Amino acid sequence: MSDIQQHALQCRDAAQVLAQLSTQAKNDLLRGMADALLADADAILAANARDLAAAQEKGISGAMLDRLRLDDKRLAGIAQAVREVAELPDPVGLVTREETRPNGIRIQRVRVPLGVVAMIYEARPNVTADAAALCLKAGNGVILRGGSEALHSNTAIAGALKRALREHDVPEAALTLVEDLRRETMVELLQLTDIVDLAIPRGGEGLIRFVAEHARVPVIKHYKGVCHLFVDASADPELSLRLLLDGKASRPGVCNALETLLVHRDIAPSFLPQAAAALRARGVELRVDDAGRAFVPHAGAATDEDFAAEFLDLILAVRVVGDLQEAIDHIRHYGSDHTEVITTRDSNNAERFVQALRSAVVMVNASSRFSDGGELGLGAEIGISTTRLHAYGPMGAESLTVERFVVRGEGQVRHPDLL
Amino acid sequence: MSDIQQHALQCRDAAQVLAQLSTQAKNDLLRGMADALLADADAILAANARDLAAAQEKGISGAMLDRLRLDDKRLAGIAQAVREVAELPDPVGLVTREETRPNGIRIQRVRVPLGVVAMIYEARPNVTADAAALCLKAGNGVILRGGSEALHSNTAIAGALKRALREHDVPEAALTLVEDLRRETMVELLQLTDIVDLAIPRGGEGLIRFVAEHARVPVIKHYKGVCHLFVDASADPELSLRLLLDGKASRPGVCNALETLLVHRDIAPSFLPQAAAALRARGVELRVDDAGRAFVPHAGAATDEDFAAEFLDLILAVRVVGDLQEAIDHIRHYGSDHTEVITTRDSNNAERFVQALRSAVVMVNASSRFSDGGELGLGAEIGISTTRLHAYGPMGAESLTVERFVVRGEGQVRHPDLL
Repeated sequence: MSDIQQHALQCRDAAQVLAQLSTQAKNDLLRGMADALLADADAILAANARDLAAAQEKGISGAMLDRLRLDDKRLAGIAQAVREVAELPDPVGLVTREETRPNGIRIQRVRVPLGVVAMIYEARPNVTADAAALCLKAGNGVILRGGSEALHSNTAIAGALKRALREHDVPEAALTLVEDLRRETMVELLQLTDIVDLAIPRGGEGLIRFVAEHARVPVIKHYKGVCHLFVDASADPELSLRLLLDGKASRPGVCNALETLLVHRDIAPSFLPQAAAALRARGVELRVDDAGRAFVPHAGAATDEDFAAEFLDLILAVRVVGDLQEAIDHIRHYGSDHTEVITTRDSNNAERFVQALRSAVVMVNASSRFSDGGELGLGAEIGISTTRLHAYGPMGAESLTVERFVVRGEGQVRHPDLL
Repeated sequence: MSDIQQHALQCRDAAQVLAQLSTQAKNDLLRGMADALLADADAILAANARDLAAAQEKGISGAMLDRLRLDDKRLAGIAQAVREVAELPDPVGLVTREETRPNGIRIQRVRVPLGVVAMIYEARPNVTADAAALCLKAGNGVILRGGSEALHSNTAIAGALKRALREHDVPEAALTLVEDLRRETMVELLQLTDIVDLAIPRGGEGLIRFVAEHARVPVIKHYKGVCHLFVDASADPELSLRLLLDGKASRPGVCNALETLLVHRDIAPSFLPQAAAALRARGVELRVDDAGRAFVPHAGAATDEDFAAEFLDLILAVRVVGDLQEAIDHIRHYGSDHTEVITTRDSNNAERFVQALRSAVVMVNASSRFSDGGELGLGAEIGISTTRLHAYGPMGAESLTVERFVVRGEGQVRHPDLL
């Protein structure tokens, strides 16, 4: 048996203990984890400094280096996030439906943990604590496979969390950090079909494609967000502009940022020049189709690739469409099923937009930036699923459980005639 | 582009039409499908006769030949089942949760179809109609890949169903029967990751392993049922015997039949001889562990393989256990996460049994044979999932949908300070 298989089996055994912990015990554990992170702050920040130095030596800089960096404030934020997970409702044991059948058997649908969740992620060391907290809250064992750039940080964080597990008499294999970062070991992990119940990849397109290609265990993808705003003919221009600026310029590097603006041709002559000026004032580069450039003469031309792109940057693709249907067709063709927004005063058009699109989150007159577990009331999120199965859109603790059936009777049988 | 990819793309396009049909339109379509099956009875039965003749020539007999056989009564049953799916509640559009956030945005969780479902199955031609009806009810396109033994039957059934689609102005690609039954074509289908949203294999272990191994699209397995009955020390012997006979002898060839009996040692001396006599009277062969054979002297010895086996036959493995925990440990080790039953008068033990086991269906004092979509109130089932993700246990129409988020606001943004 390989090391990774052995670790995964230990995690599965530990998950059986976790699955039966009381809500109180799990919440105490989570608060203990938050305390342990703060108690180990010096060691975690020292480990992070080693990762940062190695990353700089490798020439890593900018946004990626920033994602890797921890400081006192960020670490306090991580501990606070773990503490907040403790405050969330416990999804395990929740009775979602009850029914008594004509034969008298009583049926309950009850949420149970998935079992073992494998998180595959890249440079952000906060995911180590965030994902562990949500998985444990939902009674799951968790196997964490982070990026090599963050290995020292992740090891220090996992060390603190494991101490809390020991102090709360939970087998520490419930949280298993993979320290062997060879690709073949990840592939082996992704193929442990009788041990790992779900793999969640979070990171760039390359990582997600690699996981999807090699996994034999179920995968919920957290894929790119090519989010659209469609400004309908009847839209309030001021409201539309507000959503546009919030969606594109408030934090362009996140998956719920806008990437494409579609404008109805009736409103384009008045809206586009105003929008272009406001966006440019915030440093946004526009890539505009031919019809749109009549109103934004100095903009670059949008290519087919621009409409399919997740820029994650201060760049916006813009297209003028003839009607709602053309906007819908565009989104169906180029969209990534993540988040789409319509601004309109026409409730029929709003309904048509909602019904015709199958994206995980569809917004009417609200910013795409609300497509987030916290903003949508889940308390915390392990990611945003673009897989239309199990969970679609922001995934919270409940999405780390599944409903099963509990049936209680007084000796009912299906074929009493045969007895 | 290959044929199968082209067919799948057409099915995906058709699914967009289906996803927006009203409940009334879908139910009319389903009733039209039931009528078409009856109208085509002669052609379907003639096609089935060709399949039966070919199967007999190949030496197929017994249960497998019986699964393949259609007659007037069975066809009427299939049509009736489709009609009953029309009567079920429509899961699409169901608002499962609503919340208004402090900032005033209104969030709904709304059920939407999965998209395109690929059913991979073996000899039963009724699956062609059953699966099509449930998938269409839930607004999904369906790709049906049945076994070669049933190809003529399936083609005739699909022909009738497609006529109903045309008559109801639904693109007939919404129901796509794969007629190219080469394995490499099935593999290609299972790897159409941007087109097929879910593959459901139903059949023997070999088929399911093949699908799980080759699929790159999400798979919900409908795997074997190694179902257990644990007779606790405090169990009512008469009630336990009734559940045992119903579970083992009423229909041994189905996945919710009992395969293993675990008996508490305190009740074994009185219960086992009585149970053995009743089972033998119904032709059931017993394979018993050493402790049990003290009370059933003429039984064969149970091997480790017997305890892991899904016999699907009049064979029962029997083991005497020292206590509830030993029963739980046995089921965790040998079980298939399908259905487990405890008979007991001790409510604490019942609760411990329910909590400690993670099987899809856990029963207290009720027959394992109720582990079925119809019996558990789903109306109809597309199978029984043993994958602990998305759906776990019997899967009905609702399990062919997923919740997504619809958000309505009045111009709310996440960072008003930035505007």
